[in-house]
Amino acid sequence: MRRIGALIFPGFELLDVFGPMEMFGKLEDDFSLELVAETAGAIGSGQTLSAQADKTIDDAGPYDILFIPGGIGTRREVGNAALLQWIAKMSETADFTLSVCTGSALLAKAGLLDGRRATTNKAAFSWVCQQGLKVQWVPKARWVEDGQFLTSSGVSAGMDMTLRAIAIMHGTDTAETVAATCEYDWHQDSDWDPFAKLHGLA
Amino acid sequence: MRRIGALIFPGFELLDVFGPMEMFGKLEDDFSLELVAETAGAIGSGQTLSAQADKTIDDAGPYDILFIPGGIGTRREVGNAALLQWIAKMSETADFTLSVCTGSALLAKAGLLDGRRATTNKAAFSWVCQQGLKVQWVPKARWVEDGQFLTSSGVSAGMDMTLRAIAIMHGTDTAETVAATCEYDWHQDSDWDPFAKLHGLA
Repeated sequence: MRRIGALIFPGFELLDVFGPMEMFGKLEDDFSLELVAETAGAIGSGQTLSAQADKTIDDAGPYDILFIPGGIGTRREVGNAALLQWIAKMSETADFTLSVCTGSALLAKAGLLDGRRATTNKAAFSWVCQQGLKVQWVPKARWVEDGQFLTSSGVSAGMDMTLRAIAIMHGTDTAETVAATCEYDWHQDSDWDPFAKLHGLA
Repeated sequence: MRRIGALIFPGFELLDVFGPMEMFGKLEDDFSLELVAETAGAIGSGQTLSAQADKTIDDAGPYDILFIPGGIGTRREVGNAALLQWIAKMSETADFTLSVCTGSALLAKAGLLDGRRATTNKAAFSWVCQQGLKVQWVPKARWVEDGQFLTSSGVSAGMDMTLRAIAIMHGTDTAETVAATCEYDWHQDSDWDPFAKLHGLA
């Protein structure tokens, strides 16, 4: 059983979190899920609806998998030293660190991606790049794998990346079963990224 | 501005709710979102993580769009007369009633789909059919449209149906823009359903 800690913060992107958590949640014997926030209680998303934090960063972890979503709130959180410090600390002992969308800006700002390959939301590519000048940002990719780090493109890309993470841990057959159970059309090719072109990145 | 009321209940399916809410939420000038539950506060999903109800069924509505997700909790809620009554009442004044996955079992049990075409999760097809014997259940469809009712197949299908609903209300260009913003590969063909075959339904 692997413990997953998924960070949420005011202005997190709904699908960044709950697409991947749906997929991991289908394997309830293999993964346990917790939402973690800086403060306890309900945390409002960028789409106004709120999720309930199970733990605060003061009492959460350690986790086998650290999960960092994106969303408009990342614009503020890149300047939140306490949160970046928690991310760096949790990532240090995690087997895998995953981000979706602009969540990679938080990983970059925490210094975790220096010298590594990573990707992010294509509409926010330029801003994210500025959060980590030593990162090898990949403009065209559904997701990028580098060591323990899996970083995905925007929003929906997190589901494809999560199924890949499940495949790494439990095999492709298991990941395909999860996708089928969710009636999800999994893009298994990490190079599939028609959205890069829309933003002049490919 | 259309008001959306999205029902949640213990054991609701995470992605059934938050995939569609992500899509509607991208059009913040056109749609306002509320989560509604029988009781106030945090409501646990079938994947353990909790969302925060904005309103209870006693103080919620009316809505322009009523949204009903599925999940393991529907097995219990089909026997919840107060909840079914609320669904029927809200649907009566709504312009659109949408369901994802086994959410259509609740619409059926509330008598709203009698004589209409509808679909549902393919893995739960037989059980759902039994909740509405006068419904014309469609075994192979990504989603089905009948009057004000749009019912989708399992989990991920809700996002394709929601984009279609957005297209009905605001045009296909707007729906395609939302899909691109979410880096989502929208299946625009409601007949696309490779999952029906997996369950011997096509």
